[in-house]
Amino acid sequence: MTTTNTTREMIIRTGAELIARQGFGATGINAVLSATKVPKGSFYHYFKSKGDFGLAVIESYSRDYDIKLEAILGDVTRTPVERLRAYFESGTVDMTSCGFSNGCLIGNLGQELAAQNELFRARLDEVFTGWEERFAGCIAQAQDLGELDRGTDPLELAGFLLAGWEGAILRAKVVKSTAPMQRFERVFFTMLTTAD
Amino acid sequence: MTTTNTTREMIIRTGAELIARQGFGATGINAVLSATKVPKGSFYHYFKSKGDFGLAVIESYSRDYDIKLEAILGDVTRTPVERLRAYFESGTVDMTSCGFSNGCLIGNLGQELAAQNELFRARLDEVFTGWEERFAGCIAQAQDLGELDRGTDPLELAGFLLAGWEGAILRAKVVKSTAPMQRFERVFFTMLTTAD
Repeated sequence: MTTTNTTREMIIRTGAELIARQGFGATGINAVLSATKVPKGSFYHYFKSKGDFGLAVIESYSRDYDIKLEAILGDVTRTPVERLRAYFESGTVDMTSCGFSNGCLIGNLGQELAAQNELFRARLDEVFTGWEERFAGCIAQAQDLGELDRGTDPLELAGFLLAGWEGAILRAKVVKSTAPMQRFERVFFTMLTTAD
Repeated sequence: MTTTNTTREMIIRTGAELIARQGFGATGINAVLSATKVPKGSFYHYFKSKGDFGLAVIESYSRDYDIKLEAILGDVTRTPVERLRAYFESGTVDMTSCGFSNGCLIGNLGQELAAQNELFRARLDEVFTGWEERFAGCIAQAQDLGELDRGTDPLELAGFLLAGWEGAILRAKVVKSTAPMQRFERVFFTMLTTAD
Protein backbone atom coordinates (compact mmCIF):
# COMPACT_ATOMS: atom_id res chain seq x y z
CA MET A 1 0.00 0.00 0.00
CA THR A 2 1.39 3.42 -0.93
CA THR A 3 1.56 6.30 1.56
CA THR A 4 -1.27 7.97 -0.33
CA ASN A 5 -3.51 4.96 0.11
CA THR A 6 -2.50 4.65 3.74
CA THR A 7 -3.48 8.26 4.49
CA ARG A 8 -6.80 7.81 2.68
CA GLU A 9 -7.48 4.58 4.56
CA MET A 10 -6.58 6.22 7.88
CA ILE A 11 -9.03 9.08 7.25
CA ILE A 12 -11.74 6.57 6.32
CA ARG A 13 -11.20 4.37 9.38
CA THR A 14 -11.11 7.28 11.81
CA GLY A 15 -14.19 8.75 10.13
CA ALA A 16 -16.02 5.40 10.32
CA GLU A 17 -15.34 5.27 14.06
CA LEU A 18 -16.69 8.80 14.63
CA ILE A 19 -19.72 8.23 12.38
CA ALA A 20 -20.58 4.92 14.08
CA ARG A 21 -20.52 6.65 17.47
CA GLN A 22 -22.26 9.95 16.75
CA GLY A 23 -23.91 9.74 13.32
CA PHE A 24 -23.01 11.16 9.92
CA GLY A 25 -24.68 14.56 10.33
CA ALA A 26 -22.99 15.22 13.67
CA THR A 27 -19.53 14.27 12.35
CA GLY A 28 -17.96 17.41 10.90
CA ILE A 29 -15.02 17.22 8.51
CA ASN A 30 -13.04 19.33 10.98
CA ALA A 31 -13.49 16.65 13.68
CA VAL A 32 -12.17 14.01 11.27
CA LEU A 33 -9.23 16.26 10.38
CA SER A 34 -8.28 16.95 13.96
CA ALA A 35 -8.57 13.27 14.93
CA THR A 36 -6.32 12.27 12.03
CA LYS A 37 -4.02 15.34 12.04
CA VAL A 38 -4.52 15.64 8.29
CA PRO A 39 -4.69 19.14 6.75
CA LYS A 40 -7.94 20.16 5.06
CA GLY A 41 -6.27 20.32 1.63
CA SER A 42 -5.29 16.65 1.91
CA PHE A 43 -8.84 15.66 2.79
CA TYR A 44 -10.14 17.32 -0.37
CA HIS A 45 -7.37 15.67 -2.34
CA TYR A 46 -8.89 12.29 -1.46
CA PHE A 47 -12.59 13.15 -1.27
CA LYS A 48 -14.58 15.56 -3.42
CA SER A 49 -17.10 16.30 -0.65
CA LYS A 50 -18.42 15.07 2.68
CA GLY A 51 -20.90 12.91 0.75
CA ASP A 52 -18.10 11.37 -1.28
CA PHE A 53 -16.25 10.67 1.99
CA GLY A 54 -19.39 9.06 3.47
CA LEU A 55 -19.73 6.74 0.47
CA ALA A 56 -16.03 5.78 0.82
CA VAL A 57 -16.66 4.94 4.50
CA ILE A 58 -19.57 2.68 3.45
CA GLU A 59 -17.37 0.95 0.80
CA SER A 60 -14.58 0.34 3.29
CA TYR A 61 -16.87 -0.96 6.04
CA SER A 62 -18.74 -3.18 3.61
CA ARG A 63 -15.48 -4.63 2.20
CA ASP A 64 -14.16 -5.41 5.70
CA TYR A 65 -17.50 -6.89 6.72
CA ASP A 66 -17.57 -9.13 3.64
CA ILE A 67 -14.19 -10.54 4.64
CA LYS A 68 -15.49 -11.15 8.16
CA LEU A 69 -18.67 -12.83 6.88
CA GLU A 70 -16.68 -14.99 4.47
CA ALA A 71 -14.44 -16.13 7.35
CA ILE A 72 -17.37 -16.94 9.65
CA LEU A 73 -20.04 -18.22 7.24
CA GLY A 74 -17.56 -20.00 4.95
CA ASP A 75 -15.82 -21.90 7.76
CA VAL A 76 -16.32 -25.50 6.64
CA THR A 77 -14.84 -26.88 9.87
CA ARG A 78 -18.18 -25.94 11.49
CA THR A 79 -21.73 -26.94 10.66
CA PRO A 80 -23.89 -24.17 9.12
CA VAL A 81 -25.80 -23.59 12.39
CA GLU A 82 -22.51 -23.41 14.31
CA ARG A 83 -21.42 -20.71 11.82
CA LEU A 84 -24.62 -18.71 12.39
CA ARG A 85 -24.07 -19.01 16.13
CA ALA A 86 -20.46 -17.87 15.71
CA TYR A 87 -21.74 -14.81 13.81
CA PHE A 88 -24.14 -13.92 16.63
CA GLU A 89 -21.34 -14.45 19.16
CA SER A 90 -19.00 -12.14 17.26
CA GLY A 91 -21.68 -9.41 17.10
CA THR A 92 -22.26 -9.72 20.83
CA VAL A 93 -18.52 -9.36 21.52
CA ASP A 94 -18.28 -6.29 19.23
CA MET A 95 -21.24 -4.67 20.96
CA THR A 96 -19.72 -5.20 24.41
CA SER A 97 -16.27 -4.02 23.37
CA CYS A 98 -17.59 -0.67 22.05
CA GLY A 99 -19.53 -0.13 25.31
CA PHE A 100 -22.86 -0.29 23.42
CA SER A 101 -22.01 2.97 21.69
CA ASN A 102 -21.74 1.99 18.00
CA GLY A 103 -24.06 -0.75 16.83
CA CYS A 104 -23.98 -1.51 13.11
CA LEU A 105 -22.62 1.33 10.96
CA ILE A 106 -24.76 0.33 7.96
CA GLY A 107 -27.89 0.12 10.14
CA ASN A 108 -27.10 3.48 11.75
CA LEU A 109 -26.56 5.19 8.41
CA GLY A 110 -29.72 3.60 7.02
CA GLN A 111 -31.72 4.96 9.93
CA GLU A 112 -30.21 8.43 9.64
CA LEU A 113 -29.85 8.95 5.90
CA ALA A 114 -32.13 6.63 3.89
CA ALA A 115 -34.90 9.23 3.71
CA GLN A 116 -32.53 12.15 3.08
CA ASN A 117 -30.03 10.95 0.51
CA GLU A 118 -30.97 8.70 -2.39
CA LEU A 119 -27.36 7.85 -3.28
CA PHE A 120 -26.63 6.64 0.26
CA ARG A 121 -29.94 4.80 0.46
CA ALA A 122 -29.36 2.87 -2.76
CA ARG A 123 -25.82 1.88 -1.74
CA LEU A 124 -26.88 0.82 1.79
CA ASP A 125 -29.68 -1.25 0.28
CA GLU A 126 -27.13 -3.07 -1.92
CA VAL A 127 -24.96 -3.79 1.12
CA PHE A 128 -27.92 -5.25 3.05
CA THR A 129 -28.97 -7.30 0.01
CA GLY A 130 -25.43 -8.72 -0.29
CA TRP A 131 -25.47 -9.77 3.36
CA GLU A 132 -28.90 -11.38 2.95
CA GLU A 133 -27.60 -13.46 0.03
CA ARG A 134 -24.61 -14.67 2.06
CA PHE A 135 -26.82 -15.68 4.99
CA ALA A 136 -29.29 -17.34 2.62
CA GLY A 137 -26.44 -19.57 1.39
CA CYS A 138 -25.58 -20.67 4.92
CA ILE A 139 -29.25 -21.20 5.82
CA ALA A 140 -29.80 -23.33 2.67
CA GLN A 141 -26.89 -25.55 3.74
CA ALA A 142 -28.34 -25.85 7.25
CA GLN A 143 -31.70 -26.87 5.76
CA ASP A 144 -30.05 -29.40 3.44
CA LEU A 145 -28.30 -30.97 6.43
CA GLY A 146 -31.53 -31.00 8.45
CA GLU A 147 -30.08 -28.57 11.04
CA LEU A 148 -32.84 -26.03 10.38
CA ASP A 149 -36.49 -26.54 9.54
CA ARG A 150 -37.12 -26.51 5.77
CA GLY A 151 -40.48 -24.69 6.01
CA THR A 152 -39.20 -21.24 4.94
CA ASP A 153 -37.34 -20.11 1.81
CA PRO A 154 -33.64 -19.41 2.69
CA LEU A 155 -33.61 -15.85 1.30
CA GLU A 156 -36.85 -15.03 3.11
CA LEU A 157 -35.42 -16.40 6.34
CA ALA A 158 -32.10 -14.57 5.82
CA GLY A 159 -33.95 -11.26 5.47
CA PHE A 160 -35.93 -12.03 8.61
CA LEU A 161 -32.75 -12.96 10.49
CA LEU A 162 -30.77 -9.86 9.51
CA ALA A 163 -33.61 -7.39 10.09
CA GLY A 164 -34.29 -9.04 13.47
CA TRP A 165 -30.62 -8.89 14.38
CA GLU A 166 -30.42 -5.17 13.49
CA GLY A 167 -33.43 -4.60 15.75
CA ALA A 168 -31.83 -6.62 18.55
CA ILE A 169 -28.66 -4.50 18.25
CA LEU A 170 -30.76 -1.34 18.54
CA ARG A 171 -32.56 -2.69 21.61
CA ALA A 172 -29.19 -3.70 23.13
CA LYS A 173 -27.93 -0.15 22.65
CA VAL A 174 -30.96 1.27 24.46
CA VAL A 175 -30.85 -1.17 27.40
CA LYS A 176 -27.01 -1.17 27.47
CA SER A 177 -26.85 -4.95 27.66
CA THR A 178 -26.41 -7.80 25.19
CA ALA A 179 -29.52 -9.51 26.63
CA PRO A 180 -31.74 -8.59 23.60
CA MET A 181 -29.12 -10.06 21.22
CA GLN A 182 -28.90 -13.27 23.21
CA ARG A 183 -32.69 -13.41 23.37
CA PHE A 184 -32.91 -13.02 19.60
CA GLU A 185 -30.52 -15.92 19.03
CA ARG A 186 -32.32 -18.10 21.60
CA VAL A 187 -35.82 -17.52 20.19
CA PHE A 188 -34.66 -17.79 16.58
CA PHE A 189 -33.08 -21.21 17.09
CA THR A 190 -35.85 -22.48 19.37
CA MET A 191 -38.35 -21.73 16.62
CA LEU A 192 -36.31 -23.15 13.78
CA THR A 193 -34.18 -25.99 15.01
CA THR A 194 -35.65 -29.29 13.97
CA ALA A 195 -36.56 -31.52 16.86
CA ASP A 196 -34.84 -34.63 15.53
CA MET B 1 -57.59 22.00 27.08
CA THR B 2 -56.41 25.56 27.83
CA THR B 3 -54.71 27.72 25.17
CA THR B 4 -51.44 27.28 27.04
CA ASN B 5 -51.66 23.52 26.81
CA THR B 6 -52.72 23.72 23.19
CA THR B 7 -49.64 25.79 22.26
CA ARG B 8 -47.36 23.42 24.15
CA GLU B 9 -48.97 20.40 22.47
CA MET B 10 -48.67 22.02 19.05
CA ILE B 11 -44.94 22.67 19.55
CA ILE B 12 -44.47 19.06 20.69
CA ARG B 13 -46.37 17.55 17.76
CA THR B 14 -44.60 19.68 15.16
CA GLY B 15 -41.26 18.90 16.83
CA ALA B 16 -42.05 15.16 16.86
CA GLU B 17 -42.73 15.28 13.12
CA LEU B 18 -39.43 17.06 12.39
CA ILE B 19 -37.44 14.81 14.73
CA ALA B 20 -38.95 11.63 13.25
CA ARG B 21 -37.96 12.77 9.77
CA GLN B 22 -34.48 14.19 10.32
CA GLY B 23 -33.27 13.19 13.79
CA PHE B 24 -32.98 15.05 17.09
CA GLY B 25 -29.51 16.52 16.52
CA ALA B 26 -30.44 17.92 13.11
CA THR B 27 -33.67 19.51 14.42
CA GLY B 28 -32.81 23.00 15.62
CA ILE B 29 -35.13 24.89 17.94
CA ASN B 30 -35.33 27.65 15.29
CA ALA B 31 -36.76 25.15 12.79
CA VAL B 32 -39.43 24.14 15.32
CA LEU B 33 -40.21 27.81 16.02
CA SER B 34 -40.55 28.74 12.37
CA ALA B 35 -42.72 25.67 11.64
CA THR B 36 -45.03 26.55 14.55
CA LYS B 37 -44.80 30.38 14.28
CA VAL B 38 -44.17 30.51 18.02
CA PRO B 39 -41.72 33.14 19.35
CA LYS B 40 -38.54 31.92 21.06
CA GLY B 41 -39.65 33.32 24.42
CA SER B 42 -42.78 31.14 24.34
CA PHE B 43 -40.73 28.05 23.61
CA TYR B 44 -38.61 28.67 26.70
CA HIS B 45 -41.75 29.33 28.69
CA TYR B 46 -42.80 25.72 28.06
CA PHE B 47 -39.40 23.97 27.90
CA LYS B 48 -36.27 24.64 29.94
CA SER B 49 -33.94 23.42 27.19
CA LYS B 50 -33.80 21.43 23.98
CA GLY B 51 -33.25 18.29 26.08
CA ASP B 52 -36.36 19.06 28.14
CA PHE B 53 -38.30 19.52 24.87
CA GLY B 54 -36.97 16.17 23.56
CA LEU B 55 -38.16 14.38 26.69
CA ALA B 56 -41.59 16.02 26.33
CA VAL B 57 -41.73 14.74 22.74
CA ILE B 58 -40.96 11.21 23.97
CA GLU B 59 -43.68 11.48 26.66
CA SER B 60 -46.26 12.67 24.17
CA TYR B 61 -45.41 10.03 21.55
CA SER B 62 -45.37 7.28 24.14
CA ARG B 63 -48.76 8.37 25.56
CA ASP B 64 -50.35 8.43 22.09
CA TYR B 65 -48.78 5.09 21.23
CA ASP B 66 -50.12 3.52 24.43
CA ILE B 67 -53.64 4.58 23.44
CA LYS B 68 -53.12 3.07 19.99
CA LEU B 69 -51.75 -0.19 21.44
CA GLU B 70 -54.61 -0.40 23.91
CA ALA B 71 -57.12 0.01 21.07
CA ILE B 72 -55.47 -2.64 18.89
CA LEU B 73 -54.20 -5.20 21.43
CA GLY B 74 -57.19 -4.81 23.77
CA ASP B 75 -59.81 -5.29 21.04
CA VAL B 76 -61.74 -8.28 22.37
CA THR B 77 -63.82 -8.58 19.21
CA ARG B 78 -60.73 -10.10 17.61
CA THR B 79 -58.62 -13.12 18.57
CA PRO B 80 -55.14 -12.32 20.00
CA VAL B 81 -53.40 -13.29 16.74
CA GLU B 82 -55.83 -11.14 14.73
CA ARG B 83 -54.87 -8.25 17.04
CA LEU B 84 -51.14 -8.83 16.43
CA ARG B 85 -51.83 -8.93 12.68
CA ALA B 86 -53.84 -5.69 12.98
CA TYR B 87 -50.85 -4.08 14.71
CA PHE B 88 -48.49 -5.12 11.89
CA GLU B 89 -51.03 -3.86 9.35
CA SER B 90 -51.28 -0.48 11.05
CA GLY B 91 -47.46 -0.12 11.12
CA THR B 92 -47.30 -0.94 7.42
CA VAL B 93 -49.94 1.68 6.64
CA ASP B 94 -48.09 4.31 8.74
CA MET B 95 -44.80 3.54 6.97
CA THR B 96 -46.39 3.91 3.54
CA SER B 97 -48.22 7.10 4.43
CA CYS B 98 -45.03 8.86 5.56
CA GLY B 99 -43.28 7.82 2.32
CA PHE B 100 -40.79 5.66 4.30
CA SER B 101 -39.28 8.79 5.82
CA ASN B 102 -40.06 8.44 9.53
CA GLY B 103 -40.05 4.92 10.92
CA CYS B 104 -40.52 4.61 14.68
CA LEU B 105 -39.68 7.78 16.63
CA ILE B 106 -38.62 5.81 19.72
CA GLY B 107 -36.40 3.49 17.64
CA ASN B 108 -34.87 6.46 15.80
CA LEU B 109 -34.09 8.31 19.03
CA GLY B 110 -32.69 5.14 20.58
CA GLN B 111 -30.35 4.70 17.63
CA GLU B 112 -29.25 8.33 17.69
CA LEU B 113 -29.11 9.18 21.38
CA ALA B 114 -28.82 6.06 23.58
CA ALA B 115 -25.03 6.26 23.66
CA GLN B 116 -24.93 10.04 24.08
CA ASN B 117 -27.56 10.91 26.64
CA GLU B 118 -28.24 8.76 29.70
CA LEU B 119 -31.52 10.50 30.57
CA PHE B 120 -32.94 9.84 27.09
CA ARG B 121 -31.59 6.29 27.05
CA ALA B 122 -33.24 5.40 30.37
CA ARG B 123 -36.60 6.87 29.33
CA LEU B 124 -36.56 5.18 25.90
CA ASP B 125 -35.73 1.88 27.59
CA GLU B 126 -38.80 2.28 29.84
CA VAL B 127 -40.99 2.95 26.81
CA PHE B 128 -39.71 -0.19 25.03
CA THR B 129 -40.19 -2.24 28.19
CA GLY B 130 -43.79 -1.01 28.52
CA TRP B 131 -44.51 -2.05 24.94
CA GLU B 132 -42.95 -5.47 25.50
CA GLU B 133 -45.21 -6.03 28.50
CA ARG B 134 -48.32 -5.13 26.48
CA PHE B 135 -47.36 -7.50 23.68
CA ALA B 136 -46.50 -10.23 26.19
CA GLY B 137 -50.08 -10.01 27.50
CA CYS B 138 -51.53 -10.49 24.02
CA ILE B 139 -49.09 -13.32 23.23
CA ALA B 140 -49.97 -15.11 26.50
CA GLN B 141 -53.65 -14.98 25.52
CA ALA B 142 -52.82 -16.36 22.05
CA GLN B 143 -50.89 -19.21 23.67
CA ASP B 144 -53.74 -19.93 26.11
CA LEU B 145 -56.16 -20.18 23.19
CA GLY B 146 -53.74 -22.40 21.24
CA GLU B 147 -53.33 -19.78 18.48
CA LEU B 148 -49.56 -19.58 19.05
CA ASP B 149 -47.10 -22.29 19.98
CA ARG B 150 -46.51 -22.45 23.76
CA GLY B 151 -42.77 -23.23 23.50
CA THR B 152 -41.51 -19.73 24.33
CA ASP B 153 -42.13 -17.49 27.34
CA PRO B 154 -44.52 -14.62 26.34
CA LEU B 155 -42.20 -11.82 27.52
CA GLU B 156 -39.24 -13.38 25.74
CA LEU B 157 -41.29 -13.69 22.55
CA ALA B 158 -42.63 -10.13 22.91
CA GLY B 159 -39.05 -8.79 23.11
CA PHE B 160 -38.12 -10.83 20.04
CA LEU B 161 -41.20 -9.60 18.16
CA LEU B 162 -40.67 -5.91 18.92
CA ALA B 163 -36.92 -5.91 18.25
CA GLY B 164 -37.53 -7.79 14.99
CA TRP B 165 -40.26 -5.37 14.00
CA GLU B 166 -37.99 -2.34 14.66
CA GLY B 167 -35.37 -4.00 12.43
CA ALA B 168 -37.96 -4.67 9.72
CA ILE B 169 -38.99 -0.98 9.82
CA LEU B 170 -35.36 0.05 9.41
CA ARG B 171 -34.92 -2.32 6.46
CA ALA B 172 -38.18 -1.00 4.93
CA LYS B 173 -36.82 2.55 5.17
CA VAL B 174 -33.64 1.57 3.33
CA VAL B 175 -35.37 -0.40 0.56
CA LYS B 176 -38.30 2.07 0.40
CA SER B 177 -40.86 -0.70 0.43
CA THR B 178 -42.98 -2.43 3.05
CA ALA B 179 -41.76 -5.82 1.78
CA PRO B 180 -39.41 -6.38 4.80
CA MET B 181 -42.31 -5.66 7.20
CA GLN B 182 -44.60 -8.09 5.38
CA ARG B 183 -41.81 -10.66 5.34
CA PHE B 184 -41.29 -10.28 9.07
CA GLU B 185 -44.98 -10.91 9.75
CA ARG B 186 -45.09 -13.88 7.35
CA VAL B 187 -42.01 -15.63 8.81
CA PHE B 188 -43.00 -14.86 12.41
CA PHE B 189 -46.42 -16.47 12.07
CA THR B 190 -45.18 -19.37 9.93
CA MET B 191 -42.71 -20.25 12.69
CA LEU B 192 -45.13 -19.82 15.56
CA THR B 193 -48.61 -20.69 14.45
CA THR B 194 -49.60 -24.06 15.73
CA ALA B 195 -50.46 -26.55 13.03
CA ASP B 196 -53.73 -27.68 14.58
